[in-house]
Amino acid sequence: MALWSGRFTEGADAFTQRFGASLPVDQRLYAEDIAGSTAHAAMLADQGVISQDDAAAIAEGLAGIKADIESGVLIFDVQQSEDIHMAIESELTARIGDAGARLHTGRSRNDQVATDTRLYAKRRASELMDANVALREALIAQAEANFEVILPGYTHLQHAQPVLFSHHMLAYVQMLARDYDRLAAARDAADACPLGAAALAGTTYPLDRFATASALGFSRPIPNSLDAVSDRDFLLDLIYACSVSCLHLSRLCEEIVLWSSAEFGFITLSDAYSTGSSIMPQKKNPDFAELIRGKSGRVVGDLVALMMTLKSLPLAYNKDLQEDKEGAMDAADTLKDCYRCAAGMIATMTVNADAMAAQAKKGYLAATDVADYLAKKGLPFRRAHEVVGRLVLKCEQQGCDLEDLTPADFQAESDLFEADIVECLNLPAIVAARATYGGTGHDAVRSQLENAKALAAQHQPR
Amino acid sequence: MALWSGRFTEGADAFTQRFGASLPVDQRLYAEDIAGSTAHAAMLADQGVISQDDAAAIAEGLAGIKADIESGVLIFDVQQSEDIHMAIESELTARIGDAGARLHTGRSRNDQVATDTRLYAKRRASELMDANVALREALIAQAEANFEVILPGYTHLQHAQPVLFSHHMLAYVQMLARDYDRLAAARDAADACPLGAAALAGTTYPLDRFATASALGFSRPIPNSLDAVSDRDFLLDLIYACSVSCLHLSRLCEEIVLWSSAEFGFITLSDAYSTGSSIMPQKKNPDFAELIRGKSGRVVGDLVALMMTLKSLPLAYNKDLQEDKEGAMDAADTLKDCYRCAAGMIATMTVNADAMAAQAKKGYLAATDVADYLAKKGLPFRRAHEVVGRLVLKCEQQGCDLEDLTPADFQAESDLFEADIVECLNLPAIVAARATYGGTGHDAVRSQLENAKALAAQHQPR
Amino acid sequence: MALWSGRFTEGADAFTQRFGASLPVDQRLYAEDIAGSTAHAAMLADQGVISQDDAAAIAEGLAGIKADIESGVLIFDVQQSEDIHMAIESELTARIGDAGARLHTGRSRNDQVATDTRLYAKRRASELMDANVALREALIAQAEANFEVILPGYTHLQHAQPVLFSHHMLAYVQMLARDYDRLAAARDAADACPLGAAALAGTTYPLDRFATASALGFSRPIPNSLDAVSDRDFLLDLIYACSVSCLHLSRLCEEIVLWSSAEFGFITLSDAYSTGSSIMPQKKNPDFAELIRGKSGRVVGDLVALMMTLKSLPLAYNKDLQEDKEGAMDAADTLKDCYRCAAGMIATMTVNADAMAAQAKKGYLAATDVADYLAKKGLPFRRAHEVVGRLVLKCEQQGCDLEDLTPADFQAESDLFEADIVECLNLPAIVAARATYGGTGHDAVRSQLENAKALAAQHQPR
Amino acid sequence: MALWSGRFTEGADAFTQRFGASLPVDQRLYAEDIAGSTAHAAMLADQGVISQDDAAAIAEGLAGIKADIESGVLIFDVQQSEDIHMAIESELTARIGDAGARLHTGRSRNDQVATDTRLYAKRRASELMDANVALREALIAQAEANFEVILPGYTHLQHAQPVLFSHHMLAYVQMLARDYDRLAAARDAADACPLGAAALAGTTYPLDRFATASALGFSRPIPNSLDAVSDRDFLLDLIYACSVSCLHLSRLCEEIVLWSSAEFGFITLSDAYSTGSSIMPQKKNPDFAELIRGKSGRVVGDLVALMMTLKSLPLAYNKDLQEDKEGAMDAADTLKDCYRCAAGMIATMTVNADAMAAQAKKGYLAATDVADYLAKKGLPFRRAHEVVGRLVLKCEQQGCDLEDLTPADFQAESDLFEADIVECLNLPAIVAARATYGGTGHDAVRSQLENAKALAAQHQPR
Repeated sequence: MALWSGRFTEGADAFTQRFGASLPVDQRLYAEDIAGSTAHAAMLADQGVISQDDAAAIAEGLAGIKADIESGVLIFDVQQSEDIHMAIESELTARIGDAGARLHTGRSRNDQVATDTRLYAKRRASELMDANVALREALIAQAEANFEVILPGYTHLQHAQPVLFSHHMLAYVQMLARDYDRLAAARDAADACPLGAAALAGTTYPLDRFATASALGFSRPIPNSLDAVSDRDFLLDLIYACSVSCLHLSRLCEEIVLWSSAEFGFITLSDAYSTGSSIMPQKKNPDFAELIRGKSGRVVGDLVALMMTLKSLPLAYNKDLQEDKEGAMDAADTLKDCYRCAAGMIATMTVNADAMAAQAKKGYLAATDVADYLAKKGLPFRRAHEVVGRLVLKCEQQGCDLEDLTPADFQAESDLFEADIVECLNLPAIVAARATYGGTGHDAVRSQLENAKALAAQHQPR
Repeated sequence: MALWSGRFTEGADAFTQRFGASLPVDQRLYAEDIAGSTAHAAMLADQGVISQDDAAAIAEGLAGIKADIESGVLIFDVQQSEDIHMAIESELTARIGDAGARLHTGRSRNDQVATDTRLYAKRRASELMDANVALREALIAQAEANFEVILPGYTHLQHAQPVLFSHHMLAYVQMLARDYDRLAAARDAADACPLGAAALAGTTYPLDRFATASALGFSRPIPNSLDAVSDRDFLLDLIYACSVSCLHLSRLCEEIVLWSSAEFGFITLSDAYSTGSSIMPQKKNPDFAELIRGKSGRVVGDLVALMMTLKSLPLAYNKDLQEDKEGAMDAADTLKDCYRCAAGMIATMTVNADAMAAQAKKGYLAATDVADYLAKKGLPFRRAHEVVGRLVLKCEQQGCDLEDLTPADFQAESDLFEADIVECLNLPAIVAARATYGGTGHDAVRSQLENAKALAAQHQPR
Repeated sequence: MALWSGRFTEGADAFTQRFGASLPVDQRLYAEDIAGSTAHAAMLADQGVISQDDAAAIAEGLAGIKADIESGVLIFDVQQSEDIHMAIESELTARIGDAGARLHTGRSRNDQVATDTRLYAKRRASELMDANVALREALIAQAEANFEVILPGYTHLQHAQPVLFSHHMLAYVQMLARDYDRLAAARDAADACPLGAAALAGTTYPLDRFATASALGFSRPIPNSLDAVSDRDFLLDLIYACSVSCLHLSRLCEEIVLWSSAEFGFITLSDAYSTGSSIMPQKKNPDFAELIRGKSGRVVGDLVALMMTLKSLPLAYNKDLQEDKEGAMDAADTLKDCYRCAAGMIATMTVNADAMAAQAKKGYLAATDVADYLAKKGLPFRRAHEVVGRLVLKCEQQGCDLEDLTPADFQAESDLFEADIVECLNLPAIVAARATYGGTGHDAVRSQLENAKALAAQHQPR
Repeated sequence: MALWSGRFTEGADAFTQRFGASLPVDQRLYAEDIAGSTAHAAMLADQGVISQDDAAAIAEGLAGIKADIESGVLIFDVQQSEDIHMAIESELTARIGDAGARLHTGRSRNDQVATDTRLYAKRRASELMDANVALREALIAQAEANFEVILPGYTHLQHAQPVLFSHHMLAYVQMLARDYDRLAAARDAADACPLGAAALAGTTYPLDRFATASALGFSRPIPNSLDAVSDRDFLLDLIYACSVSCLHLSRLCEEIVLWSSAEFGFITLSDAYSTGSSIMPQKKNPDFAELIRGKSGRVVGDLVALMMTLKSLPLAYNKDLQEDKEGAMDAADTLKDCYRCAAGMIATMTVNADAMAAQAKKGYLAATDVADYLAKKGLPFRRAHEVVGRLVLKCEQQGCDLEDLTPADFQAESDLFEADIVECLNLPAIVAARATYGGTGHDAVRSQLENAKALAAQHQPR
């Protein structure tokens, strides 16, 4: 029977008990719930609201419950307890009697669940930050191991200009470093303690909110009790951070899938990160890259779900908010797995430098450099662009590449061309010429690589 | 070891096995998978591809597996089987030997999973249609039981014109009847059989796709094998139907919450569909209405998730599609529970006719009728509107309602008013006067109620 | 000054006028608004509520206004009129006096805007259905023109089995035919007339709702007045149908982009459907395919927007509903343009059959057929699968394809192989062997093509 | 004719020109485009790439173009120019000749549009931050003006405990202050300069990227050229910040709508922020609150749209990204208008203290305090909760409130009650007793108010 049933004369059947219960979801918060209750009880005793003996009994009782949950001895039943808070408190009171019944003094489930959820969000954000660094390290390692490899850089999936493979990998490191910052911002958003807000208005007991906040590792208590019980922005921030990072992974994995195709052949995934077919014996599929790509949908779905749930809710707590946790848990679980899987996949893939080089020779990748050559001789760039357009058309008609043209071919289109034009048509030279900050020139990328390593080192798990 | 590992030299560790596996989700398809395999084997035998003995062994083996799953004897492990298809087939081959290994002839997991999922979608859509009817019946019963009760009709949450409570309930019945049709459309969308499409291109075996489609209760086989393995529109249709119905429920539950407030007091929920507070002993909260309202978010999130997953996928099957089922299952589970809970909540709520009547007397609900009175006497409606605006202003300044004005007060604003104006100010008369088709007049609503009952009867579960 | 300002003593400044106004959006409904008003006036006269002279004056006045809008003579200003309904009615009254002021008898903006929007939705759905057919025809024409062309069929973007290019095109025709049905369902959802529901409760005038419904081409009046003014399901249905079709186009365009890449080279887009680069003279980008692919986002965004807006709205009309039209218009505009652009792009693209054939020779596309060969000789399929896995491994180690193996190589792995195994390795033979319904075999695809043409013919714009 | 058409032999018709063009959207970036080009030209001259004379001609030409755009003299046509970049550059070259054609040296539209968009995003974020502060000030002013007013605090829309109206207003100030920080984070995300990344790989010209970044007010250049042209995270961050704030406004406006209802009557909106009805003369509708509430949908829709567009895009630039700006502009426009409207609505509303007080006397708001009374006397809180539950049941049966019970009534349920229990039942005393940090006690709220004012002052527009 639910604890709140004192005023009710009718029973609730198993369906409504199950439907209304959050236990299957919020039991993952057991450790946070116990930490919160322990800190609350200690503070109550320090403030003279309950006795130190009661606080000690509570702390000991909760420690025992935690151990029993973790050993699998204690399992809660949704038909007995609607949520983890009630489940633990009932068990505590069954174990230690009246002291347990004093725990909820000056507290409500409204501030209790908000506290638990914030502790949980902080923990998950930290885990994700660590997993994020691991993936960045895998990308950095591939960039370093294949530093000089050149592949065609694409815009519109068309060959554009040659770039270093390392430069390409480091573009993803940049994205992921931003995701790290977004996760850190989400952790900061969760880092304020609602405990003491009680149901919605604060409480008549002389609580020391700064003490519980500090004991639980929060940087501050939340300054408005109504906001404390109704705010779920910190979960939006967490799911949003996960969503953006999943979008980045969808882009990376799209490229993994492309590069693994027979047509590209740029990489070979390790067998551990590929699968076969139940019908086609020859297949080696980039299943994991596809799965990560596909999972971006569910995380964005989690974000939309919570946004829609929050829309139009009046203050302060409404039961709609019970729907807040499952999506956040799912987003964090998903991103963590995706980070881990992507790191393994990247770390173990083989880069086929020859295939990349072969493609980089196609598609007139030197065209921009030829135009720049003319522009540097004084031809306005727009005019130079037109000249090269004609050269490319000539190549297409002749079925050759720019490298195959003679100086005379060039000079036929513009007398600004001299013999040194052929020096523009060499891939490593083209790459090296892009020497400005952030460009794909070797020195610029080397510097970028060092910075990426330094930042990853600084972001190492403590 | 996975069945496809023949060409691989490296093992996959527990993480990638778990991450890549769909078993925790698709094991809910076990019955559909067994039905599909049984039909496939029977057809193979009829076509002479396998022997009748093999088909009989397969059918018997699968029946045994189904019984063992349902009795709890047979439990699959994600570390052993990546999906329900492999789990069942491996078990079958372990039980019956080579006959089991012949089951997968002329079939791929690609058409197999599509078949299972379509069977599942059809079953869930039917369940939801039945639950939809139950909720409509609860609304109809309340409409009938409180047929004459008048409440203020609202626009902008402002009192507008009086309406019958039954008319208000029947508006939701209309919405839900549309949802029924949308669910039926989703069921029809799923009602085409992919079996025989094999991996993507059809197969070299002389399958009879019409036979398996018919044996499984499908109305037709899918006419293009690439489409057969890559189409997930039917799941979008199902989740979309669930989403729209959840939006309707969010509107109904918003009103339940409003009506349960002290300020409105229009209904009293039964204790079975209310809960108390852990800190405030006096509270009786419409938790279930809030929970249903909040769950609209997750279902729309499920829709967005699958849409995003499908975006930009090339043909034919991609592993991203493995993400298709969880959201559809969640949407169906959620809507089914919401229907059931809403039906119980509506069926057991008490309508406080007096509170509704008291509010219906406030807010100048007769104002439109006064304007109509003038318009019927020839004053253009826009002019009549202005006259009544002045009368309402007078009431506000005097702190009274239109009923409290004298005929002289009326005549002071327009000499078209005669003594019979007071007959316009009576609530039942105002309601009855809206006698056109679809209006809130008693006869019109009675007719609507009879139609709603007839349609619900026609939609009864078979 | 707004018409409703009779009771207000304060003015509204330009900001609130602009912010609250819907005119910039709903002026696109002018023709529907005039049609609705004309039908309403005629019915009012037929019912004796207004005179036939008034109705004639209204009809003539509205016809003049329509002509003046279309010739550009009459332009409405958001600072003068908050919406198209008020704009037209004010103009009418200015032109014809009191008869104009009688138009709004027995009507409210609530049922008026719902009527206009439904007429608009029906019109747009029909337009989209026609544009849908045009795209299907373009796909069918390419399928027919390149009927025998073989390309590698893909799963996981890995070569799987050879398929006819025509089969591949027809997969999209299947998707689009479903979209046509979804658009038709959306049109049907809109095909019910709210006129006569008035503000929310019906009206005291003896309206003939069946007459106005019929005059406006609706199949029926809406049976509940509260539902009539608050229902926006038909717009959800329309945007949903657009969303799903945009997802299909995103898949098609993803393939167009892939196929246009240097690595694939399967097609060449016409210059009219490609663009160049401002810096790289050699580029020929599949911009239009990318743009269509990218526009799937905005249409799904339109769907989410309206769903969130509808969430938790109590009955009946709320101003939030003013946000309903812009997204629906955007979705329809976007899909219509995308259909047109895709049709042109498909119609004018060149299929590079040689490039497709070259790729189809790579990737062991005969592997399934080799396994089937063994299975047909009695080896259980799962065992055959393993044998072929070993053959593929041998090819990979030798750097050759299955075609390059000798009968002896085959027999080394299984003595079931005979000399006729080499007949399995021919691409057209592999394709032709998939002869079952829906497969890629030539006859099956020919039949599918004929059905697709017949259906497109049946769906021709009337 | 488009500038890139040098290599094309076919023309593009008006449709593809319109469909492919971004001018109707990106012309809002004209000032940013001109600023970016001016800085680029100056840097080119400083680096010796073009002459100082050319740079001066460019700067002067662009200044003239800007003036002509702003005066309305110069209007661009989508059939002439596909985007604002080409429109301005073509015009420049027409005006100043070859110098104009040299502007695009070392630059691509890819880095150009990214630069313009980031400048734009920074500007809009700043505007929104200022508008955010204005709304907070309006809320703070109402909190201050009605500091002592008590209303029932709600959970589950049920009366829970009395709270100060000022405390309630300040809860929204807290939310909005978080939104301010999110907008600031979005501005910071945009604050990195892509100029110099060129098409995707950097450029062969000796650009000084730090110089252009600094000249344009960016804090840094972006360190990876591929990332520079493909990153749109900063737009996601901006739309996300707008979305969350719109959700907060939807909650505030839901309460405005509730409070404006006849049933609540807690506030009266000014006429400037209300509207009437075209049919019901007595109506005064909270239209603007509803409109703001409804607009939360479109902004979340904008977020989903861009997320879906970004999903699965390979590096570097793809035309899909052209879809990035319209949603971000819409989100910023919408939130800015909503902030302004909400500020005016809040500033001008009248707080009906008596109506709030009357409701605060209903619903046993003292119940928690009675339980606390018992708990402070040593009864475990859970037992006290049960006692008060019985007292509330007694009140319900007697139709009275806790204030109406005698000390004897209390003592009948527990002998811990003494005569001083009646002091718990006074609303101001109940409020004042919640004196802990963040509670609704007067001193705690006064302190919160001062902090909110100080923070708003600190956030004043520079």
